[in-house]
Amino acid sequence: MSQDSTTRIIANLRAWIAAAPPGARLPSNRALVAEHGASPVTVQKAMRQLIAAGLVESRPGIGTFVRSLRAARPADYGWQTSALGTPQARVSMLSSTQRSVAPDAIGLHSGYPASDLLPERAVRAAITRAARSSAALSRSPVTGMPELQEWFAHELAAAAPAGITPPTARDVLIISGSQSGLSSIFRAVVGPGQPLVIESPTYWGAMLAAEQAGVTLVPVPSGAYGPDPDDVDRALERTGARAFYAQPTFANPTGGQWPIETSDAILQIVRRRGAFLIEDDWAHDLAIDADPRPIAARDDDGHVIYVRSLTKSVSPALRVASVIARGPARERILTDRAAESMYVSGLLQAAALDVVSQPAWRTHLRGLRQQLRGRRDLLLDSVREHAPAAHIDTTPAGGLNLWARLPDGTDPARVVREAEARGLIIAAGDEWFPAEPSGPFVRLNYSSDDPRRFPDAARILGEVLDHLGD
Amino acid sequence: MSQDSTTRIIANLRAWIAAAPPGARLPSNRALVAEHGASPVTVQKAMRQLIAAGLVESRPGIGTFVRSLRAARPADYGWQTSALGTPQARVSMLSSTQRSVAPDAIGLHSGYPASDLLPERAVRAAITRAARSSAALSRSPVTGMPELQEWFAHELAAAAPAGITPPTARDVLIISGSQSGLSSIFRAVVGPGQPLVIESPTYWGAMLAAEQAGVTLVPVPSGAYGPDPDDVDRALERTGARAFYAQPTFANPTGGQWPIETSDAILQIVRRRGAFLIEDDWAHDLAIDADPRPIAARDDDGHVIYVRSLTKSVSPALRVASVIARGPARERILTDRAAESMYVSGLLQAAALDVVSQPAWRTHLRGLRQQLRGRRDLLLDSVREHAPAAHIDTTPAGGLNLWARLPDGTDPARVVREAEARGLIIAAGDEWFPAEPSGPFVRLNYSSDDPRRFPDAARILGEVLDHLGD
Repeated sequence: MSQDSTTRIIANLRAWIAAAPPGARLPSNRALVAEHGASPVTVQKAMRQLIAAGLVESRPGIGTFVRSLRAARPADYGWQTSALGTPQARVSMLSSTQRSVAPDAIGLHSGYPASDLLPERAVRAAITRAARSSAALSRSPVTGMPELQEWFAHELAAAAPAGITPPTARDVLIISGSQSGLSSIFRAVVGPGQPLVIESPTYWGAMLAAEQAGVTLVPVPSGAYGPDPDDVDRALERTGARAFYAQPTFANPTGGQWPIETSDAILQIVRRRGAFLIEDDWAHDLAIDADPRPIAARDDDGHVIYVRSLTKSVSPALRVASVIARGPARERILTDRAAESMYVSGLLQAAALDVVSQPAWRTHLRGLRQQLRGRRDLLLDSVREHAPAAHIDTTPAGGLNLWARLPDGTDPARVVREAEARGLIIAAGDEWFPAEPSGPFVRLNYSSDDPRRFPDAARILGEVLDHLGD
Repeated sequence: MSQDSTTRIIANLRAWIAAAPPGARLPSNRALVAEHGASPVTVQKAMRQLIAAGLVESRPGIGTFVRSLRAARPADYGWQTSALGTPQARVSMLSSTQRSVAPDAIGLHSGYPASDLLPERAVRAAITRAARSSAALSRSPVTGMPELQEWFAHELAAAAPAGITPPTARDVLIISGSQSGLSSIFRAVVGPGQPLVIESPTYWGAMLAAEQAGVTLVPVPSGAYGPDPDDVDRALERTGARAFYAQPTFANPTGGQWPIETSDAILQIVRRRGAFLIEDDWAHDLAIDADPRPIAARDDDGHVIYVRSLTKSVSPALRVASVIARGPARERILTDRAAESMYVSGLLQAAALDVVSQPAWRTHLRGLRQQLRGRRDLLLDSVREHAPAAHIDTTPAGGLNLWARLPDGTDPARVVREAEARGLIIAAGDEWFPAEPSGPFVRLNYSSDDPRRFPDAARILGEVLDHLGD
């Protein structure tokens, strides 16, 4: 009863306060007792709650007043410095590949293909169908939608030679993008303070995930033909690392693809050393001159942990990827995923599966291959013609990027700045090196802007290099 | 040229091998030289690649043979034991709340509302609209879609009393579900090996995320009226913890709501101790008898890190939530999110924002409140009538669950097993305790199954308790 009166008085006073100017004086407690037919105790209780809520302030002996808005004060979060301590990993800034830029600039910095390279109609139709399905209102199992697990398993199994037991749907964990998969693998399979062998240069997102997991990076040089297997072997031996992260197919940024002999040698090395190969097959659907050859398809002893995403080939909005792992490693990764995110939206999974299950998907991939080839060649020709000082020694057989070496002594950051001032956005190669860069590089994405602008882009790069070379 | 011949020979032989039985002998190298008009070197090269790919095996002096499929062997991943070492955290099994069960069983174990409590039409329409928008094919900014950040900021600001500077859109980070937010907060703000004060009992998913982050849990007893602030103060002082995780509003599992005096006292304590309150406002949209009162709305010094999700009230498939944090804590959490997942699908963000921006959303919430009230009261009445030994001392003012104490000496796991054998699925309370349970409890979700089955559910529970009490 008294609770109800208190609630009623508070509601009335809140309305009164909302309409009153700051500093206005509230009716006296005596007036409120009379107005509401309530006891003084009830009125005092209501008033205490309004004070506690910060709506009014009491000046003893004078009255109760609507609180004035404090003048906007500079926020002081200094106390957090002591609560937080120094960061666990160095605070990594976001990559320049994720910047938003002026809409009229030529953007060759992004890590994603332009939307006109995506299967737009299939994506929109798949989402619309998923909106009508049970996937729009239900929860997905922790490991993912069984049919999508099946699809990923089948894709890898199709590349398995005779004699190798291919992965099954159970070995597949659906994740929300390969970045999440790498984070979980580095946390669950490598662990904080432990060494991880990586290529140099390599994908900056993998380095970011590894650093955030507290993993120590052990770089080995790599390039158009992958690393020297002996280097990898020595790095594993020297550091005791139990894992090697790599992109054997159309690596980002170099575009390199490992020869089959290198893949075999690396597989033998990780077997001998009791180690994992973490194979990031990021460009599986972005082949041009060669087909992807997942190493995971040739391993059935659980040595290869395989990551494949649909984000770049289906749609960045259908953020779905998979980790394929066997044995206890799968359990560790699953436990980390469950703790991290419980499950991936079934809507995204259903729509992505719909897209890749349509006959039009194969047609799309063939068209994409032609598109990528045309754009790659056009940018390559443009750079060779208009920016001959930018040396591209490998024509990538797949992926999205050219990796151009600038003349010795050039500062890539300065090239990037000056190019931006002239309307061209590119990425300095330094971001892909775990340590000091082996030379001055820039990365040029040939899939992220209108190819008709490539000659202009190359001209700008040429001008900047000429200017800096003077 | 030679590369082309090799590729052609390999392609032909692959087709031949695919059609041949295991053990079949390949044509001799001499025959292949003749057949393909290629050099012996080229044929040998092709053969080496087929061997390396595991498709054929060479028996020197005899010939080359299609490899026989290895007899299915039991996989041996024993080598991983040494590569992985002992797990960082104890390997937490999935909660029983996530189990799938026989479709004819009565399921009161889930943590989610049944789909007939969701705004189904609005969700389907919103997804369909998003499918036609640019959100279907583009990438979201790392911090989230600005309009959705704005919406979350406004929701919290609307509860801010005069004199408190409300949060702005910039303080909001969009995340893919509150589990991801808790994981990042525990990693970035608390850190491995550091203590975290929590309520006991509390949400098992938070404990799972904390354990996976390597955080040490420091429990304080809590219940229908939250914890005793003095307990929290002592726990912070004794352990030096800089953070307290809590669900002040309709806590899971107890349904408790902190009185405003408790909230104020806790806010003062974290201020005095230079600590964070991690406020998990999971049931903001699941109010019944009382309105949510986010403590974060009354803090503008960055002491409260606020998590709010739309997963349970909009749709489990629109996995979107927010973290609101200020100062360096925001930067730490953002860095962790970027490393963990880069960005959240813009499709999910656009659809979720669409749902909560419709006028129908307020109508839906009012209807949901009525529905939850009816179901809560029906289950409560049913349990009191048919399972009087299950004692429910608090009628929850919101949320999805009843928290029932069983007679002393009862084994909740056994009750769960016997109930399941009779077609009722419930969750043993032990999962919500960070240490030994303070008593035998079960949690009963009144939102996850057809309320017409509640009397039957209560009868089963009553029979099981009678049976065990004999």
